[in-house]
Amino acid sequence: MQEAINAALEGMRKMGGGPFGAVVVKNGEIVGRGSNRVTDTNDPTAHAEVVAIRDACAKLGEFQLDGCEIYTSCEPCPMCMGAIYWARPDKVYYACDKTDAADVGFDDAFIYKELELPLHDRKIPFTQISRDESLKIFGEWGEMEDKTEY
Amino acid sequence: MQEAINAALEGMRKMGGGPFGAVVVKNGEIVGRGSNRVTDTNDPTAHAEVVAIRDACAKLGEFQLDGCEIYTSCEPCPMCMGAIYWARPDKVYYACDKTDAADVGFDDAFIYKELELPLHDRKIPFTQISRDESLKIFGEWGEMEDKTEY
Repeated sequence: MQEAINAALEGMRKMGGGPFGAVVVKNGEIVGRGSNRVTDTNDPTAHAEVVAIRDACAKLGEFQLDGCEIYTSCEPCPMCMGAIYWARPDKVYYACDKTDAADVGFDDAFIYKELELPLHDRKIPFTQISRDESLKIFGEWGEMEDKTEY
Repeated sequence: MQEAINAALEGMRKMGGGPFGAVVVKNGEIVGRGSNRVTDTNDPTAHAEVVAIRDACAKLGEFQLDGCEIYTSCEPCPMCMGAIYWARPDKVYYACDKTDAADVGFDDAFIYKELELPLHDRKIPFTQISRDESLKIFGEWGEMEDKTEY
């Protein structure tokens, strides 16, 4: 965890973005590292966990983190939580929590609350259109035989 | 939406990843485009919406999508939902929904259910450690005067 906290501190002081860091560990070795890079790379998805997961997957040449642990300096926001579920590591350690993050001005807790509301009650409006058109592609995916599932 | 569906079809047929596509529109013009690239880039975060948001932000030179609409061929998974909240577009249109995605083998609905559980009841175990160490960095962030907030 100290390495994740170091990454957070370094990233923040370099003005990469917010005070967040994460590392991915496999067999006791760090295989991925990230700090928040939202503002210096103009990428709202460049949270520490996402950066560390992408770094680890690139190094390992895999899109799954089997046998890995993630250490993150703060409880993952919903985006990072989703990213972690898709990457499927064995375990996650976190330091600060979403309330701590809210206390210093980050939207994590707000977004968690929004996700509990029905789509039509959210601050960003969500509208369903053209379902039938898109379902046809799902049908084609279902029938593909040489696809890579994830 | 037809452009998002076209991106989904093209990405799937090129074996980039799953059958998903998205576009970002600003003032009636497409400013970002993405299809799922999880398997061909070994990046579990490369969902269509994330790819399209990153593309649009890179083109616009911004980390926010003010005044933009996102069209996605499927209801965003929790990761993409979080990414959308951080990018803050005005509105989102989606075609298929998370149940349709589950029907063709994707974990969206499962991850939504996991996020409703307390951290200690989830399939991937989450453990809090070293909060005090990490809180110190949040304190330093709170006091920084020249930071870029997001």
